[in-house]
Amino acid sequence: MDKLIVVKIGGNIIDDETKLSSFLQSFAAIQGKKILVHGGGKLATRVAEAMGIQQQMVDGRRITDAETLKIVTMVYAGFINKNIVARLQSFNCNAIGLSGADGNTIKAHKRLEGKASPSGGGLEGAVDYGFVGDIDEVNAELLHTLLQINDAIVLAPIIHDGKGQLLNTNADTIAQEVAKAMSGLYNVDLIYSFEKSGVLLDVNDEASVISNINPSSYKQLKAEEKIFAGMLPKLDNAFAAINSGVQKVIIGKAEELQHLIEGTKGTAIIHE
Amino acid sequence: MDKLIVVKIGGNIIDDETKLSSFLQSFAAIQGKKILVHGGGKLATRVAEAMGIQQQMVDGRRITDAETLKIVTMVYAGFINKNIVARLQSFNCNAIGLSGADGNTIKAHKRLEGKASPSGGGLEGAVDYGFVGDIDEVNAELLHTLLQINDAIVLAPIIHDGKGQLLNTNADTIAQEVAKAMSGLYNVDLIYSFEKSGVLLDVNDEASVISNINPSSYKQLKAEEKIFAGMLPKLDNAFAAINSGVQKVIIGKAEELQHLIEGTKGTAIIHE
Repeated sequence: MDKLIVVKIGGNIIDDETKLSSFLQSFAAIQGKKILVHGGGKLATRVAEAMGIQQQMVDGRRITDAETLKIVTMVYAGFINKNIVARLQSFNCNAIGLSGADGNTIKAHKRLEGKASPSGGGLEGAVDYGFVGDIDEVNAELLHTLLQINDAIVLAPIIHDGKGQLLNTNADTIAQEVAKAMSGLYNVDLIYSFEKSGVLLDVNDEASVISNINPSSYKQLKAEEKIFAGMLPKLDNAFAAINSGVQKVIIGKAEELQHLIEGTKGTAIIHE
Repeated sequence: MDKLIVVKIGGNIIDDETKLSSFLQSFAAIQGKKILVHGGGKLATRVAEAMGIQQQMVDGRRITDAETLKIVTMVYAGFINKNIVARLQSFNCNAIGLSGADGNTIKAHKRLEGKASPSGGGLEGAVDYGFVGDIDEVNAELLHTLLQINDAIVLAPIIHDGKGQLLNTNADTIAQEVAKAMSGLYNVDLIYSFEKSGVLLDVNDEASVISNINPSSYKQLKAEEKIFAGMLPKLDNAFAAINSGVQKVIIGKAEELQHLIEGTKGTAIIHE
């Protein structure tokens, strides 16, 4: 099977035009087929503020109401996605940018209202996160065909329910689901690139990168509360990916993309 | 050669959710391969107003400065394009939405500053229309490949210069250039759908549709000033298309798409 690199880039790179351009140059230089999944950055918030649209938050999470969905569709699937594609084209990387609706790439359903009860008694509360989607299916065949005629695919975190409704979702989750779906057709490496050098033992010390984490060391690190809580969803995603066919997951600094791919920097999530 | 229908929809349909949905249902029902080119509608103006961005106009034309380019990229390639694609998916039409940057579909150059001198003495004046592109090349091979794996392609009027710069352009021109480029691979019919029933002899009488216009009748109609001036660029585009391999151009009402395709309504632009 051919190699496929799936890279997620975080918002802080997207917000910095110089860093983004340098990152995209490294991404364009990756040998072979690749998929880039991007998040949103601060532009959506800035547009919402400029338009006087209030952002609703519940438990620290943004509620995607109809106006917010309109803005994230404009910013993520429009401005950010198309600027990334145009930039990659300038680096001789023939990229094609898609939302989940395009070619039915990612089908989803609207997240159920309410939250799972901690007592295990089903759903409780009445929190409606709005137009947020949970992924049902990734169209791996289409992505495979598109990779035969293009160098790269650029995915925005906007998906759809097949009934005409666009939905917002988390770019980390898209990267994980795409990597899993493509692992039947390619040897897939999944790279989560962000502002830190990797998973750190000391969140204030960039030199404290943990080079490898396997399931038993992860258990221990969690028990000893040595990992910053914000990293746990990313790590859970990473383990879910390697348990579903993805060969390797690497977490590290976007500016070091080349080294992350070579395995010389960042944190590798491995089986044992 | 297979048949290909290229349809342009105008802004007033895009602004009306009910009309748009009905139009997209008719578009989805077209047998065989099809390409939809959409313009912008009023949303871009509304977003610009809401964000307090002044629209600059010169000679009645909008200047695409950097902020305006950002907005039209968001609105055209993001909001409108993805909503159209999601709606087509709900009508079982597997559509894929693209800007000109995606897969290098439409390459262009920034329009030259200044205008051609009426005296034929080259460029004069110093009007800069900003980030507006003139089309150099349509990637017909890519569109052909995509039409083999999807039912429809939806094109936003955002193109690129290959050097990382997105550019705004006119959707009528995109429709014409795409129809011409595809006419080497398909028997192409080009439909300009808008709010009128066709080219009218009396702009206030929807029953005064001219059913056919050929080059000599066009000359006469122009000499007698019987055609509304705003229609002339569309008609010039239409004649340019049939002179470059497009089989048939039809101009008519978006709500009558099915009849326009069957040739029972609207104005047909023909060779003789």
